[in-house]
Amino acid sequence: MAQNIYDDDAFFDAYGQLPRSVRGLDGAPEWPTLRALVGDVAGRRVVDLGCGYGWFCRWVADAGAASVRGIDLAERMLARAAAERDPTPGAAAIHYDRQDLDQLELAPRSFDVAYSSLTLHYLVDLDRFLSTVHDALVTGGRFVFSAEHPLCTAPSHPGFVTDARGRSIWPVDRYLDQGPRTTNWLVPGVVKQHRTIATYVSSLLDAGFRLTDLVEWGPDAEQLASEPGWSVELDRPPFLLVGAERS
Amino acid sequence: MAQNIYDDDAFFDAYGQLPRSVRGLDGAPEWPTLRALVGDVAGRRVVDLGCGYGWFCRWVADAGAASVRGIDLAERMLARAAAERDPTPGAAAIHYDRQDLDQLELAPRSFDVAYSSLTLHYLVDLDRFLSTVHDALVTGGRFVFSAEHPLCTAPSHPGFVTDARGRSIWPVDRYLDQGPRTTNWLVPGVVKQHRTIATYVSSLLDAGFRLTDLVEWGPDAEQLASEPGWSVELDRPPFLLVGAERS
Repeated sequence: MAQNIYDDDAFFDAYGQLPRSVRGLDGAPEWPTLRALVGDVAGRRVVDLGCGYGWFCRWVADAGAASVRGIDLAERMLARAAAERDPTPGAAAIHYDRQDLDQLELAPRSFDVAYSSLTLHYLVDLDRFLSTVHDALVTGGRFVFSAEHPLCTAPSHPGFVTDARGRSIWPVDRYLDQGPRTTNWLVPGVVKQHRTIATYVSSLLDAGFRLTDLVEWGPDAEQLASEPGWSVELDRPPFLLVGAERS
Repeated sequence: MAQNIYDDDAFFDAYGQLPRSVRGLDGAPEWPTLRALVGDVAGRRVVDLGCGYGWFCRWVADAGAASVRGIDLAERMLARAAAERDPTPGAAAIHYDRQDLDQLELAPRSFDVAYSSLTLHYLVDLDRFLSTVHDALVTGGRFVFSAEHPLCTAPSHPGFVTDARGRSIWPVDRYLDQGPRTTNWLVPGVVKQHRTIATYVSSLLDAGFRLTDLVEWGPDAEQLASEPGWSVELDRPPFLLVGAERS
C-alpha cells in the first residue's frame, strides 16, 4: 500500500499552498506538454488516477468528455474535489471514488483515456498498476502520465549543491538502486519510490503498451523569460512525461 | 561530420589498451545484456555501424549470419578489423567499408539486424542516421544500439566528486542542454554529443521504429562480486542499451 501522506494535516495544508494547488493546471508548468500528450478528449471515457483536487477531471469534463472518473487515496483531496465542482452546462458529471492505486480495480475495456499526474512515484507495485490500467483501456486507448523525474528521486540527498568550482550541481547517487526514498518534502518522512526511466518504460512494454511519447520535461524559452529562476531545471529535469497506447 | 578521433595516433594507442579492445566482447561488461537484445542472428543479414576492430562482426559471422557488413569512419580500425579475421569454416565473409555515419548510405530493406555499439554519441545528425537505418531494415527488422549514458555525457565536468558528507556523487548539470561536449577521454579534446534519453527514444519513434527494449545498464551481482570497484556504476549507469523494431 502506498503511503497516504496527502491525508496528513501538515502535508495537506502545505500542499494547498503550492502554485498547482492554488492555480490548478495553469499553475503546473508541465501542463501544456502533458495536455498535448492527452490530445482530444471530446466524447471519450476518461479516468484520472490520483486525481487530487480534481482539476484535471473538471478540465476533461469541460472539454466534452463522455464520462469522467477521478480516483484517489486521500479522503480530504476527494472531499475538496467533490465540493469544488463548478458544473458547466452540458458537461459530464464527474464520479469520484477512493481507492489505493496499489490495489486498483477497474472494469476491463471501460476507458478510452487514462491519466495520472505525479502519482506513480508513490506506488509500490507499478507492474500490477500498469497491467490494470492496460486492461481497463480499449484497444487504441491512451495512457498518459507524469512522474517525478528519476534524477530527482534517486539521490540520497536531493537538492542542488555548489561544487568546488562554484557551480551548482545536482548530486546523483544510487540511481540504479531502486526502491523507497524517504525525503523531506513539505513535511518530513514522505516516502517516494525511486525507479529508473528504463523501469518505467520497460514496465509499460511488459504490460502490453506501445510507447508513443517520452519527455524529460524542462521549461521552454518563454517560461524561462517569465520565470528566470526555473533555469535550474535545465540542469536536471523535474518531471518525466510518458504517453502509451494499448495496441 | 563526426569527429574522427579514432584515427588519432595517441587515441588509437590508448584505446587499444582498454579491456574491450584487448579482450573483445568478453571485455565489455554490458555485452551479455546487449547480446540478449540482439537475439538470434543465424541466417540474418547484419550490419554493424561503427564496427571498430570488428569483434561483433566476427561474432555474428561465427553465429551463422547470412551476411555481415562492418562500417566505420576510422581507417586504422578497419585495417585492423580486416587483418584480424580468423575465418571459421563455413562462416559468412565480412565486408568492411569506410563511411562517415553522419552521411551513411544503405540500400533500402537490405538488412535484418542493425547494430551499433557506443557510437551514436559521436554522431551529429541522429535523426538522419536513424531514418537511414530504419529504411535499410526489412519489416520486423531489429536495431540494437548502446550509447554512453546521458548522465555521463551531460556534466560540464564528468567525474565522481566527494560531497560535504564525504559521499561520492556524480555531479549532474546541463542535462537538458543538448549538444557537443568536449572532454578528456584517453586524449584531450574528444567531442561527444550529449542527448537525453527522451531524445534517443523520441528520435527512434519519429523515424518509425517501435521501441522494444530500454536498459540503463549497470553491473549485476555476479559482476560486482568479481569486480567490486564497479559498484560506482550503480550511482549512475555508464551505458544506455536500446532495442527497436521496424514495424
